[in-house]
Amino acid sequence: MKRGIFITLEGIDASGKTTQFKRLVNYLKRRGYDVVSFREPGGEDVSERIRKILLDNRFALTREAELFLYLASRSQLVLNRIIPFLKDKKIIVCDRFSDSTLAYQGYGRGLSLKLVKKLNDFATNRLVPDLTILIDVPLKESLKRAKDKKKDRLERSGISFYQRVRGGFLEIARKEKTRVKMVDGIGGVEKTWDKVKAVVDEFLQID
Amino acid sequence: MKRGIFITLEGIDASGKTTQFKRLVNYLKRRGYDVVSFREPGGEDVSERIRKILLDNRFALTREAELFLYLASRSQLVLNRIIPFLKDKKIIVCDRFSDSTLAYQGYGRGLSLKLVKKLNDFATNRLVPDLTILIDVPLKESLKRAKDKKKDRLERSGISFYQRVRGGFLEIARKEKTRVKMVDGIGGVEKTWDKVKAVVDEFLQID
Repeated sequence: MKRGIFITLEGIDASGKTTQFKRLVNYLKRRGYDVVSFREPGGEDVSERIRKILLDNRFALTREAELFLYLASRSQLVLNRIIPFLKDKKIIVCDRFSDSTLAYQGYGRGLSLKLVKKLNDFATNRLVPDLTILIDVPLKESLKRAKDKKKDRLERSGISFYQRVRGGFLEIARKEKTRVKMVDGIGGVEKTWDKVKAVVDEFLQID
Repeated sequence: MKRGIFITLEGIDASGKTTQFKRLVNYLKRRGYDVVSFREPGGEDVSERIRKILLDNRFALTREAELFLYLASRSQLVLNRIIPFLKDKKIIVCDRFSDSTLAYQGYGRGLSLKLVKKLNDFATNRLVPDLTILIDVPLKESLKRAKDKKKDRLERSGISFYQRVRGGFLEIARKEKTRVKMVDGIGGVEKTWDKVKAVVDEFLQID
């Protein structure tokens, strides 16, 4: 192995993505892999400071500022954490990455997809995940699952916003079939995990 | 007057720009104008939070993250402060604006000038100052003036970096003669103020 492996998990809020992310990290560790995991936005000193701004409900962010803050956070994470760990041959698992920005800020907020893609490339030095697992659930399902705080956020941004974001993720998966593997997340944690595990086992050639 | 007037001051660190900015704001207020003033980065809740990150010496920012943070701060300031005040027919005076990003992140850090210009337009909804006063001093002069903390910063970024930034500002002034008025800042506060005042008096047609 010349360099490490970079795996990302994607999906709309309350899709169960973070639960699967944690399972995946533990699974790979148990199998003896040298795993480093991050959540976006965050994972680095500056990125965590930016995360606080992004998740602070008191602030009304312009959609441009929101985009720039995600990109600033990602640039720090990639250059100061992900790239060095990849050189060190780790497996890096990341909860959200560039696809989230394309889905949320591009498809969701309506910013130019071309510009968002270009800026993702610029922020990451063109780093693309080796494998992306998209946990897809219908919006109705994610609303049912979302608790209190998350539900507030979902409802504040509006149902049609999340419809566009989900549609964006599905389009990304359709366009990049080799990298992005879609997993139906509707069947509950265990069933979804079986599917995620199958994708990862095949990718890493685990028997 | 259909809308207000937007004036910016630009120049390298320790050029005396902020001293002239304060004088200009006071002068316009004394003349009875309805003036609002901002410093960049900052001037708005989110922008001030971003300012703290940008000026925190403990952080090693990637040049991409630095660019994105300045742009995020500017987007918030323009949309939430400058545009409403312009509609309200104020005179807005801003210590630094888009030209600083082009000079520092573009010419200075070597990021694509075309991309920086495009992102400035995107962050500001294409808002361009009506008048920009560039206070130009040779680097030797700014180093002589800079005190302690500012001197540290100047020296940390390197002399050749500031040479490129100054060259960038001069090129912007050459290319946009109508908007950008260059003022020689080498003669001390009073002499420089006379020149700044002359530029503003002519622009506002003050006798």
